[in-house]
Amino acid sequence: MRSVYVGGAVLTQFGKDPRSLGEIFCEATQGALADNEHVDALYLGVMNPEEFTGDSNIASLIADAVGLTGVPATRVETASSAGAAALMAAFQAIASGYYERVLVLAGEKMTHLSTSATTRILAEVIDPRERLCGATMPALAAMITEKYRQKFRLSDTRLENILCSIALKNHANGVKNPSAQFQRAISRDTYLGSKFVATPLRLYDCAPITDGAAAVVLTHEPTDVRLSGVGQGTGVLSLQDRQVFTSFPSTQIAAARAYAMANTGPKGIDFAEVHDAFTPFEIISTEDLGFFLPGKGGDAAFEGKTNLEGTLPINPSGGLKARGHPVGASGLAQVVEVTKTLRGERPWRREFRRGLTQSTGGLGTNNFVTILERADAPVVQNSWTVTTALANKPVRTAPSARLSEEGVIETFTMVYVTPDGFLPPLALALVRTADGRLIMAQGEENDSALKIGREVYLRRIDGLYLFTVKSHMQRVQEAFSKFLHRKVAETSQENK
Amino acid sequence: MRSVYVGGAVLTQFGKDPRSLGEIFCEATQGALADNEHVDALYLGVMNPEEFTGDSNIASLIADAVGLTGVPATRVETASSAGAAALMAAFQAIASGYYERVLVLAGEKMTHLSTSATTRILAEVIDPRERLCGATMPALAAMITEKYRQKFRLSDTRLENILCSIALKNHANGVKNPSAQFQRAISRDTYLGSKFVATPLRLYDCAPITDGAAAVVLTHEPTDVRLSGVGQGTGVLSLQDRQVFTSFPSTQIAAARAYAMANTGPKGIDFAEVHDAFTPFEIISTEDLGFFLPGKGGDAAFEGKTNLEGTLPINPSGGLKARGHPVGASGLAQVVEVTKTLRGERPWRREFRRGLTQSTGGLGTNNFVTILERADAPVVQNSWTVTTALANKPVRTAPSARLSEEGVIETFTMVYVTPDGFLPPLALALVRTADGRLIMAQGEENDSALKIGREVYLRRIDGLYLFTVKSHMQRVQEAFSKFLHRKVAETSQENK
Repeated sequence: MRSVYVGGAVLTQFGKDPRSLGEIFCEATQGALADNEHVDALYLGVMNPEEFTGDSNIASLIADAVGLTGVPATRVETASSAGAAALMAAFQAIASGYYERVLVLAGEKMTHLSTSATTRILAEVIDPRERLCGATMPALAAMITEKYRQKFRLSDTRLENILCSIALKNHANGVKNPSAQFQRAISRDTYLGSKFVATPLRLYDCAPITDGAAAVVLTHEPTDVRLSGVGQGTGVLSLQDRQVFTSFPSTQIAAARAYAMANTGPKGIDFAEVHDAFTPFEIISTEDLGFFLPGKGGDAAFEGKTNLEGTLPINPSGGLKARGHPVGASGLAQVVEVTKTLRGERPWRREFRRGLTQSTGGLGTNNFVTILERADAPVVQNSWTVTTALANKPVRTAPSARLSEEGVIETFTMVYVTPDGFLPPLALALVRTADGRLIMAQGEENDSALKIGREVYLRRIDGLYLFTVKSHMQRVQEAFSKFLHRKVAETSQENK
Repeated sequence: MRSVYVGGAVLTQFGKDPRSLGEIFCEATQGALADNEHVDALYLGVMNPEEFTGDSNIASLIADAVGLTGVPATRVETASSAGAAALMAAFQAIASGYYERVLVLAGEKMTHLSTSATTRILAEVIDPRERLCGATMPALAAMITEKYRQKFRLSDTRLENILCSIALKNHANGVKNPSAQFQRAISRDTYLGSKFVATPLRLYDCAPITDGAAAVVLTHEPTDVRLSGVGQGTGVLSLQDRQVFTSFPSTQIAAARAYAMANTGPKGIDFAEVHDAFTPFEIISTEDLGFFLPGKGGDAAFEGKTNLEGTLPINPSGGLKARGHPVGASGLAQVVEVTKTLRGERPWRREFRRGLTQSTGGLGTNNFVTILERADAPVVQNSWTVTTALANKPVRTAPSARLSEEGVIETFTMVYVTPDGFLPPLALALVRTADGRLIMAQGEENDSALKIGREVYLRRIDGLYLFTVKSHMQRVQEAFSKFLHRKVAETSQENK
C-alpha cells in the first residue's frame, strides 16, 4: 500500500455561522489549498444535508461552490462519523495509486433549525422502533451511562464527579483553541447548575449544536505528518439487540486495524481526540481504545491523567464538547486538530509525535480510528487485543404476539429535551422481559421510582410499548395472589 | 494498482416491492455471496433514504439487516449515480490493498410515496434557485431536449421519431430481462398516446419510479470478469450557469479516465448500459462516450445501430426505462447487467467481451464510466479526446438588482407532472437577459406561444422570476414607442 500524508489542514470558526454550507466549505477549501494547488478529487463528509438544508446531490453542489467543477466529487456518509469516513475513502483512493492528491471536506450546517427539529433529525440515526418511543441520541446515551454506572458500581455522586471532571477539562482545553465554539472555562457550579437533558446527563455533558467545516489535503507526496493507521468497525444498531452496553465493539474493531497498520498500540499514542458527543462516551472510548481498563476510564479522567498536562491527554482541542459538533465535520475536525498539534500549530506547550482520533457514528454503530504521526515518532510495538468485538452480533428474538407482559428495567432515563412531537419529561426504559427479550418502552406516568432492576408492566399499543413500574402494594398483592393460587392448588391436590 | 475482479453480481426483481429496504438488501446480499463467503467491508449506494424512508445512518442499519454487523460499512452518495460511486470507492479500497474482498450494495425504496412527493425529493438534486420555480428533473431534461432539438435542427416530428425509437428499443429489450420492471414491448401508438410529463418528453421518455437493489462482490482474486476501467467527473450544477446544454462534460471526463485506464476507447466497447433516465439522455450519453458524433446519436438509434442486433447495442437490459430506476441502485445495476451479459447469463444471443456502463448523478453533474471485460477481450487501442469538458466551469454573473427586465427564451418546457406545491401545467423557461445572464423563470400564464428565441418580459417577486411572452401587439407597440421617442428627440434637436 502506498504511503499517504497530510498536506493543508484547517477548520473554520466553529459556532453559529450565518453563511450557507457552500460558503463555509469555500473558506475551508481556500484555507487548506495553497494557491493554484491542484487536487485530483474531492471527498465530502456531510451527515444529513437532505434534512438540515434540503439539499440532495451535495457533492456536486459543493464541488461547484468551492470552484472544483469537473473534479470527481463524492459524498461519504456514516452518520456522525462522516468526516472520518470521507478521510478513509480518500486515503484508500491515494493508497491505491488512483489519485495523487485529494481534498477532503467535512461539515454541517445545523444552527438555523430549532433544537427540537435538530433533535428529531439527529434521532433518525437510531433504530426506528426506538425512535417511535421518542428516544433521542442523548436519551440513549443516558441509558448507556446509567448502565455503566450500575455495572461498575459507581454511586450517583461518583458518576456526577467523573462526568463533571470531563466537562470541565474539555471546556478548559477549549479556551486555548481559537477554532472552538466555546472558548471559556466552566466551574463545577456551572456544571451542576445546568439542566438535565436526559438523566443523568446534563446540558454540559452534551456537545452543542454547531455549524462548521474541516478541510484536509491528502497526498502521496511526503509531508511532515503521515497517516499511519486507519480502521473502521460497525456495531449493533438497536439498543434492544445489544449484548454489550458499556463498550462500543465498533471502536475496538477499528482500533485493532489502525494499531496493526501503524505497527503500534495504545502505549504508542501520545494523545488522542475522541468522540465526546456525551462526556460518558469519552470514558467509553478511552477504554475501548485500550488506554484504560473497562470501568477505569472515569477514574483516569477524574485523577487528571487525561488533562493537557497528564500522562495521556484526551481532547486537548476541547473535544466535541467545547470545540463544537457540526456532526458531519467532527471526524475530520479531529484529524485537523491532531495534525495541527503534531505541527506545533496549537498553543499547547507539549510536544507530541503520534496522535490518534476516534470518531463515532450514531450510537457507536459506525466508528473510525485514525493514527497520525511525525517522521520522528518512535517505534512502540504494543500488541493489543479486542475484548468485546466478538459480542458484536445482534441478539434478536421473535417478537411476542402478547399485548401485555411483565419485565425488569435493564436501564432507563428521564428525557427533558424531547424531539418534535413528544412532550417533556418523557420516561424511557429498556425492559427485559421474562423470556430474555429487550424492549424499548415509554413510561405511562412520570415516575420518579425508576431504577435498574425494578419490575414493570408492559403493554403494547399500535407497536409502541408503554411501561408502568409496579408499586410496592402491587408487588404485595401479586405475591399474595400467587400464594392463594398455590394454596388452592395444594388444597385441590389434597382433596383428590 | 492491484487488479480488481467481479465475483457474485445480482439484482432483485425491480418494480413495486412491498418489503423494507433492509429486506430487499438482504435478498441481494444472499444472492451475491456464496455460503460462508467472507467480505472485509460493505459499500452502500443509496441516494436519499433520509427522505424516502426517514432513515439516516443507513450504512449501520443495512450492515445489521444483512447480517454483517461489525464489518466496516460505508454509504457513498452522488445522487442518482450513487451505485456507481459505491462501486468506485470499493474498487479503490481493493486496488489499494486495504481490503481483499468487499460487498457493494446499492438500492432505493421509492414506490410507497406519491408521485408528487417523489418528484419533489428527486428535484432536490437540482439548483435551489431553479427548484424555487418548480423545476423538476424531467422539466430540466425537457429543456435540455428542446435545446438539443434546436441546436441540431431537428423538426418536432424527427425528434419525436428518434425518442420513440429509443423507448421502443428499451422496452423491447426489457422483455428478455427477468429482473426488469417492465417486461413488455410497447408500440409506437402506445408511445404517442402517452401523456406529456414535460414537453417534449412523454411518460414513455421517462424512467419509472422503482424499488430494487443490486449487489456486486469485488475481489482481488481473479474471476472471469475484470473491472478494467473506472472514471468519474462532475459538471456545473445549475442550468443557469452552463455554457453547454446538449452534452454532459462530466461523462466525458469520466470516460477519458476509464478508457485510459482500460487502455481502450469507444471502438473497443462491444456494448454499453447508459443512464437513460430520459430517452434523450441515452442519445447525449452515446455522443459523450464517443460512440457517435454530436447530434448523430439520435440517428444511430433511429437507424437501429443501437438495437440488440445492431453494431453497438445500447441498454440490452432495457435500460433504466424498462428495467426500472431505483435511483441509488441504477449505477450498480448497470454493472450487474454488463457482468451477467459478459458471462452469458442473460438470454440475449450475442457474445460480448468488453462492456461499458455510464451512470448519471443529478442533471449530469456527477457521472461515472466503468469498463468491464472478459479475459479474452481483444486489445483495441483507440485514442479518444474530450471535446466539451473544458467548457466545464460555471459562468456566473452578478445578480441584477432590477425588479424587471427583458430577455429571450434560451430553452423552455411545459411541465404537466409538477412537484408538491405546484399546480400543472407549469411553463418554465431559461431566459437570457440583455447582459448575457441566464435566468430560470416561471411562466405567468400558460402560454402556448413558447419558442426558443422568443422575447419575454421578466419580473422578480421574492427571489422568484416570472416571465411573460411579448405578444405581437406588444412588439408593435414597443417598436412604435421607440419610433416616437426617436422622433421627439429629433424634433427637440431640430428646435435647438
